[in-house]
Amino acid sequence: MSAELFCLTYGAMVTEMLKDYEDPKDVTIQLDKMGFNMGTRLADDFLAKNANVPRCVDTRQIADVLCRTAIPCYLGVSATASSWTSGDREFTITLESNPLTELVQVPPHLVSAGLSYSQLIAGAIRGALEAVHFKVYASATESGANTEIRIRFDQVLKDSLPAGEDD
Amino acid sequence: MSAELFCLTYGAMVTEMLKDYEDPKDVTIQLDKMGFNMGTRLADDFLAKNANVPRCVDTRQIADVLCRTAIPCYLGVSATASSWTSGDREFTITLESNPLTELVQVPPHLVSAGLSYSQLIAGAIRGALEAVHFKVYASATESGANTEIRIRFDQVLKDSLPAGEDD
Repeated sequence: MSAELFCLTYGAMVTEMLKDYEDPKDVTIQLDKMGFNMGTRLADDFLAKNANVPRCVDTRQIADVLCRTAIPCYLGVSATASSWTSGDREFTITLESNPLTELVQVPPHLVSAGLSYSQLIAGAIRGALEAVHFKVYASATESGANTEIRIRFDQVLKDSLPAGEDD
Repeated sequence: MSAELFCLTYGAMVTEMLKDYEDPKDVTIQLDKMGFNMGTRLADDFLAKNANVPRCVDTRQIADVLCRTAIPCYLGVSATASSWTSGDREFTITLESNPLTELVQVPPHLVSAGLSYSQLIAGAIRGALEAVHFKVYASATESGANTEIRIRFDQVLKDSLPAGEDD
Protein backbone atom coordinates (compact mmCIF):
# COMPACT_ATOMS: atom_id res chain seq x y z
CA MET A 1 0.00 0.00 0.00
CA SER A 2 1.50 3.29 -1.05
CA ALA A 3 2.00 5.92 1.64
CA GLU A 4 1.22 8.66 -0.91
CA LEU A 5 -2.22 7.22 -1.61
CA PHE A 6 -2.99 6.95 2.10
CA CYS A 7 -1.76 10.47 2.79
CA LEU A 8 -3.86 11.98 -0.02
CA THR A 9 -6.95 9.98 0.92
CA TYR A 10 -6.63 11.14 4.51
CA GLY A 11 -6.13 14.73 3.40
CA ALA A 12 -9.23 14.55 1.22
CA MET A 13 -11.20 13.16 4.15
CA VAL A 14 -10.13 15.90 6.56
CA THR A 15 -10.87 18.56 3.92
CA GLU A 16 -14.33 17.06 3.50
CA MET A 17 -14.89 17.10 7.27
CA LEU A 18 -13.76 20.71 7.57
CA LYS A 19 -16.49 21.62 5.09
CA ASP A 20 -19.13 19.73 7.07
CA TYR A 21 -18.27 20.87 10.57
CA GLU A 22 -18.01 24.57 11.23
CA ASP A 23 -15.54 24.29 14.09
CA PRO A 24 -12.12 22.66 13.46
CA LYS A 25 -12.30 21.44 17.09
CA ASP A 26 -15.27 19.28 16.09
CA VAL A 27 -13.19 17.77 13.29
CA THR A 28 -10.56 16.83 15.89
CA ILE A 29 -13.27 15.19 18.04
CA GLN A 30 -14.58 13.31 15.04
CA LEU A 31 -11.09 12.14 13.96
CA ASP A 32 -10.55 10.93 17.51
CA LYS A 33 -13.78 8.89 17.44
CA MET A 34 -12.98 7.42 14.04
CA GLY A 35 -9.50 6.54 15.28
CA PHE A 36 -10.96 4.94 18.40
CA ASN A 37 -13.22 2.65 16.36
CA MET A 38 -10.33 1.73 14.08
CA GLY A 39 -8.08 1.10 17.09
CA THR A 40 -10.42 -1.48 18.59
CA ARG A 41 -10.33 -3.40 15.31
CA LEU A 42 -6.59 -2.98 14.85
CA ALA A 43 -6.07 -4.39 18.38
CA ASP A 44 -7.75 -7.64 17.30
CA ASP A 45 -5.66 -7.73 14.16
CA PHE A 46 -2.51 -6.99 16.16
CA LEU A 47 -3.15 -9.70 18.76
CA ALA A 48 -3.91 -12.25 16.05
CA LYS A 49 -0.63 -11.48 14.30
CA ASN A 50 1.61 -11.05 17.34
CA ALA A 51 0.88 -14.01 19.62
CA ASN A 52 4.34 -13.69 21.16
CA VAL A 53 3.84 -10.17 22.55
CA PRO A 54 3.66 -10.53 26.35
CA ARG A 55 0.76 -9.18 28.41
CA CYS A 56 1.65 -5.64 29.54
CA VAL A 57 1.54 -4.93 33.24
CA ASP A 58 2.69 -1.31 33.30
CA THR A 59 2.81 1.79 31.11
CA ARG A 60 6.52 1.32 30.31
CA GLN A 61 5.68 -2.02 28.71
CA ILE A 62 2.69 -0.53 26.88
CA ALA A 63 4.90 2.24 25.48
CA ASP A 64 7.45 -0.35 24.45
CA VAL A 65 4.94 -2.48 22.51
CA LEU A 66 3.46 0.63 20.86
CA CYS A 67 6.82 2.07 19.81
CA ARG A 68 8.62 -1.12 18.86
CA THR A 69 5.85 -3.23 17.36
CA ALA A 70 2.42 -1.68 16.83
CA ILE A 71 3.32 1.72 15.34
CA PRO A 72 6.03 0.35 13.01
CA CYS A 73 3.58 -2.39 11.94
CA TYR A 74 0.65 -0.11 11.06
CA LEU A 75 2.19 3.29 10.31
CA GLY A 76 5.46 1.96 8.93
CA VAL A 77 7.56 4.37 10.98
CA SER A 78 9.55 4.03 14.16
CA ALA A 79 8.62 5.86 17.34
CA THR A 80 10.14 6.63 20.73
CA ALA A 81 8.62 7.20 24.15
CA SER A 82 9.89 9.98 26.43
CA SER A 83 8.87 12.77 28.83
CA TRP A 84 7.59 10.40 31.51
CA THR A 85 5.72 12.19 34.30
CA SER A 86 3.17 11.58 37.08
CA GLY A 87 4.86 8.39 38.23
CA ASP A 88 5.01 6.95 34.68
CA ARG A 89 1.30 7.58 34.15
CA GLU A 90 2.01 10.06 31.33
CA PHE A 91 4.40 9.87 28.43
CA THR A 92 4.95 11.22 24.94
CA ILE A 93 5.33 9.12 21.82
CA THR A 94 7.28 10.89 19.09
CA LEU A 95 6.86 9.56 15.55
CA GLU A 96 10.05 9.56 13.53
CA SER A 97 7.98 10.76 10.59
CA ASN A 98 4.25 10.94 9.98
CA PRO A 99 2.78 9.33 6.86
CA LEU A 100 -0.41 11.39 7.32
CA THR A 101 1.39 14.70 6.90
CA GLU A 102 4.02 13.70 4.33
CA LEU A 103 2.42 15.44 1.34
CA VAL A 104 0.18 17.97 3.06
CA GLN A 105 0.61 21.30 4.74
CA VAL A 106 -1.92 21.97 7.48
CA PRO A 107 -2.83 25.70 7.47
CA PRO A 108 -1.63 27.28 10.75
CA HIS A 109 -4.96 29.07 11.28
CA LEU A 110 -6.76 25.71 11.44
CA VAL A 111 -4.24 24.43 13.98
CA SER A 112 -4.77 27.59 16.06
CA ALA A 113 -8.51 27.01 15.79
CA GLY A 114 -8.16 23.55 17.33
CA LEU A 115 -7.58 21.17 14.44
CA SER A 116 -5.35 18.28 15.48
CA TYR A 117 -4.71 16.84 12.04
CA SER A 118 -3.21 13.56 13.25
CA GLN A 119 -5.74 12.93 16.01
CA LEU A 120 -6.80 9.78 14.13
CA ILE A 121 -3.54 8.16 15.28
CA ALA A 122 -4.06 9.25 18.91
CA GLY A 123 -7.65 7.97 18.77
CA ALA A 124 -6.50 4.65 17.31
CA ILE A 125 -4.00 4.21 20.16
CA ARG A 126 -6.74 5.02 22.68
CA GLY A 127 -9.11 2.53 21.02
CA ALA A 128 -6.49 -0.21 20.75
CA LEU A 129 -5.51 0.16 24.43
CA GLU A 130 -9.13 0.23 25.55
CA ALA A 131 -9.65 -3.06 23.68
CA VAL A 132 -7.03 -4.58 25.97
CA HIS A 133 -8.58 -2.91 29.04
CA PHE A 134 -6.31 0.10 29.48
CA LYS A 135 -8.23 3.37 29.54
CA VAL A 136 -6.03 6.26 28.43
CA TYR A 137 -6.35 9.79 27.10
CA ALA A 138 -4.36 10.53 23.96
CA SER A 139 -3.83 13.72 22.00
CA ALA A 140 -1.70 14.43 18.96
CA THR A 141 0.21 17.61 18.24
CA GLU A 142 2.49 18.53 15.39
CA SER A 143 5.73 19.88 16.76
CA GLY A 144 7.80 21.14 13.85
CA ALA A 145 8.50 18.15 11.61
CA ASN A 146 7.57 15.69 14.36
CA THR A 147 4.22 14.42 15.48
CA GLU A 148 3.93 13.87 19.21
CA ILE A 149 1.23 11.85 20.91
CA ARG A 150 0.77 12.51 24.59
CA ILE A 151 -0.68 9.52 26.42
CA ARG A 152 -2.14 9.76 29.92
CA PHE A 153 -3.02 6.52 31.65
CA ASP A 154 -6.38 6.62 33.43
CA GLN A 155 -7.30 3.17 34.73
CA VAL A 156 -7.40 -0.57 34.10
CA LEU A 157 -10.95 -1.48 33.04
CA LYS A 158 -11.52 -4.40 35.38
CA ASP A 159 -15.28 -4.59 34.86
CA SER A 160 -14.93 -5.59 31.26
CA LEU A 161 -12.45 -8.39 31.91
CA PRO A 162 -13.92 -11.82 31.17
CA ALA A 163 -15.28 -13.65 34.23
CA GLY A 164 -12.50 -15.53 35.95
CA GLU A 165 -9.79 -13.04 35.01
CA ASP A 166 -11.03 -10.54 37.59
CA ASP A 167 -9.15 -10.44 40.87
CA MET B 1 2.02 1.63 5.34
CA SER B 2 -0.34 -1.05 6.50
CA ALA B 3 -3.21 -2.03 4.20
CA GLU B 4 -5.42 -2.64 7.26
CA LEU B 5 -4.99 0.95 8.45
CA PHE B 6 -5.80 2.31 5.01
CA CYS B 7 -8.83 0.06 4.63
CA LEU B 8 -10.26 1.07 8.01
CA THR B 9 -9.56 4.76 7.45
CA TYR B 10 -11.32 4.62 4.12
CA GLY B 11 -14.25 2.74 5.64
CA ALA B 12 -14.56 5.36 8.39
CA MET B 13 -14.51 8.11 5.77
CA VAL B 14 -17.25 6.55 3.64
CA THR B 15 -19.37 5.91 6.75
CA GLU B 16 -18.96 9.57 7.68
CA MET B 17 -19.98 10.66 4.17
CA LEU B 18 -23.04 8.41 4.18
CA LYS B 19 -24.18 10.25 7.32
CA ASP B 20 -23.67 13.64 5.70
CA TYR B 21 -25.23 13.00 2.30
CA GLU B 22 -28.72 11.61 2.18
CA ASP B 23 -28.31 9.85 -1.12
CA PRO B 24 -25.62 7.15 -1.54
CA LYS B 25 -25.36 8.29 -5.17
CA ASP B 26 -24.04 11.63 -3.89
CA VAL B 27 -21.37 9.80 -1.89
CA THR B 28 -20.28 8.08 -5.11
CA ILE B 29 -20.07 11.47 -6.86
CA GLN B 30 -18.06 12.86 -3.95
CA LEU B 31 -15.67 9.88 -3.86
CA ASP B 32 -15.17 10.34 -7.60
CA LYS B 33 -14.25 14.03 -7.12
CA MET B 34 -11.89 13.26 -4.25
CA GLY B 35 -10.27 10.53 -6.33
CA PHE B 36 -9.92 12.92 -9.27
CA ASN B 37 -8.06 15.47 -7.17
CA MET B 38 -5.81 12.77 -5.74
CA GLY B 39 -5.20 11.37 -9.21
CA THR B 40 -3.86 14.66 -10.55
CA ARG B 41 -1.34 14.71 -7.71
CA LEU B 42 -0.47 11.03 -8.03
CA ALA B 43 0.21 11.59 -11.75
CA ASP B 44 2.94 14.08 -10.84
CA ASP B 45 4.37 11.69 -8.29
CA PHE B 46 4.21 8.83 -10.79
CA LEU B 47 5.94 10.76 -13.58
CA ALA B 48 8.67 11.92 -11.18
CA LYS B 49 9.35 8.33 -10.10
CA ASN B 50 8.98 6.61 -13.46
CA ALA B 51 10.98 8.64 -15.94
CA ASN B 52 11.42 5.57 -18.14
CA VAL B 53 7.71 5.04 -18.82
CA PRO B 54 7.17 5.91 -22.49
CA ARG B 55 4.56 8.43 -23.65
CA CYS B 56 1.32 6.57 -24.37
CA VAL B 57 -0.20 7.00 -27.82
CA ASP B 58 -3.21 4.70 -27.58
CA THR B 59 -5.57 3.19 -25.00
CA ARG B 60 -3.82 -0.20 -25.10
CA GLN B 61 -0.64 1.49 -23.89
CA ILE B 62 -2.54 3.46 -21.26
CA ALA B 63 -4.11 0.26 -19.97
CA ASP B 64 -0.71 -1.39 -19.94
CA VAL B 65 0.91 1.37 -17.85
CA LEU B 66 -2.05 1.42 -15.45
CA CYS B 67 -2.13 -2.35 -14.94
CA ARG B 68 1.58 -3.06 -14.91
CA THR B 69 3.01 0.00 -13.19
CA ALA B 70 0.65 2.56 -11.69
CA ILE B 71 -1.91 0.32 -9.95
CA PRO B 72 0.71 -2.08 -8.49
CA CYS B 73 2.73 0.95 -7.36
CA TYR B 74 -0.10 2.75 -5.53
CA LEU B 75 -2.60 0.05 -4.60
CA GLY B 76 -0.07 -2.74 -4.17
CA VAL B 77 -2.10 -5.19 -6.25
CA SER B 78 -1.87 -6.43 -9.81
CA ALA B 79 -4.54 -5.70 -12.37
CA THR B 80 -5.54 -6.85 -15.85
CA ALA B 81 -7.28 -5.11 -18.73
CA SER B 82 -9.95 -6.89 -20.75
CA SER B 83 -13.37 -6.53 -22.42
CA TRP B 84 -12.16 -4.12 -25.10
CA THR B 85 -14.99 -2.58 -27.11
CA SER B 86 -15.82 0.43 -29.33
CA GLY B 87 -12.58 0.11 -31.29
CA ASP B 88 -10.44 -0.06 -28.15
CA ARG B 89 -12.06 3.08 -26.70
CA GLU B 90 -13.52 1.15 -23.76
CA PHE B 91 -11.97 -1.47 -21.51
CA THR B 92 -12.30 -2.98 -18.06
CA ILE B 93 -9.54 -3.09 -15.47
CA THR B 94 -9.99 -5.93 -13.00
CA LEU B 95 -8.13 -5.61 -9.72
CA GLU B 96 -6.70 -8.90 -8.47
CA SER B 97 -7.81 -7.83 -4.99
CA ASN B 98 -9.00 -4.55 -3.55
CA PRO B 99 -7.28 -3.12 -0.47
CA LEU B 100 -10.26 -0.77 0.10
CA THR B 101 -12.69 -3.65 0.62
CA GLU B 102 -10.40 -6.16 2.37
CA LEU B 103 -11.84 -5.72 5.87
CA VAL B 104 -15.23 -4.24 5.10
CA GLN B 105 -18.56 -5.52 3.88
CA VAL B 106 -20.54 -2.99 1.90
CA PRO B 107 -24.26 -3.44 2.69
CA PRO B 108 -26.08 -4.58 -0.50
CA HIS B 109 -28.88 -2.04 -0.02
CA LEU B 110 -26.34 0.81 -0.30
CA VAL B 111 -24.95 -0.69 -3.48
CA SER B 112 -28.51 -0.96 -4.88
CA ALA B 113 -29.04 2.67 -3.89
CA GLY B 114 -26.07 3.77 -5.99
CA LEU B 115 -23.03 3.61 -3.69
CA SER B 116 -19.93 2.70 -5.65
CA TYR B 117 -17.65 2.05 -2.69
CA SER B 118 -14.42 1.98 -4.67
CA GLN B 119 -15.22 4.97 -6.88
CA LEU B 120 -12.19 6.73 -5.34
CA ILE B 121 -9.96 4.46 -7.41
CA ALA B 122 -11.91 5.13 -10.61
CA GLY B 123 -11.80 8.87 -9.87
CA ALA B 124 -8.05 8.71 -9.24
CA ILE B 125 -7.50 6.99 -12.59
CA ARG B 126 -9.64 9.64 -14.30
CA GLY B 127 -7.69 12.43 -12.56
CA ALA B 128 -4.29 10.91 -13.31
CA LEU B 129 -5.13 10.44 -16.99
CA GLU B 130 -6.56 13.95 -17.27
CA ALA B 131 -3.27 15.27 -15.86
CA VAL B 132 -1.55 13.72 -18.87
CA HIS B 133 -4.25 15.06 -21.22
CA PHE B 134 -6.44 11.99 -21.70
CA LYS B 135 -10.05 12.65 -20.83
CA VAL B 136 -11.82 9.45 -19.81
CA TYR B 137 -14.91 8.32 -17.91
CA ALA B 138 -14.29 5.74 -15.21
CA SER B 139 -16.66 3.85 -12.94
CA ALA B 140 -16.00 1.17 -10.36
CA THR B 141 -18.20 -1.81 -9.61
CA GLU B 142 -17.72 -4.69 -7.21
CA SER B 143 -18.30 -7.94 -9.03
CA GLY B 144 -18.17 -10.73 -6.47
CA ALA B 145 -14.70 -10.72 -4.94
CA ASN B 146 -13.32 -8.57 -7.77
CA THR B 147 -13.42 -4.86 -8.31
CA GLU B 148 -13.81 -3.81 -11.91
CA ILE B 149 -13.14 -0.37 -13.28
CA ARG B 150 -14.70 0.40 -16.62
CA ILE B 151 -12.78 3.06 -18.54
CA ARG B 152 -14.21 4.88 -21.53
CA PHE B 153 -11.84 7.07 -23.50
CA ASP B 154 -13.35 10.43 -24.47
CA GLN B 155 -10.71 12.66 -26.06
CA VAL B 156 -7.15 13.93 -26.00
CA LEU B 157 -7.18 17.35 -24.35
CA LYS B 158 -5.18 19.25 -26.93
CA ASP B 159 -6.07 22.71 -25.67
CA SER B 160 -4.24 22.19 -22.44
CA LEU B 161 -1.04 20.95 -24.03
CA PRO B 162 1.85 23.38 -23.53
CA ALA B 163 2.50 25.67 -26.48
CA GLY B 164 4.71 23.97 -29.01
CA GLU B 165 3.46 20.48 -28.26
CA ASP B 166 0.18 21.11 -30.05
CA ASP B 167 -0.06 19.85 -33.60
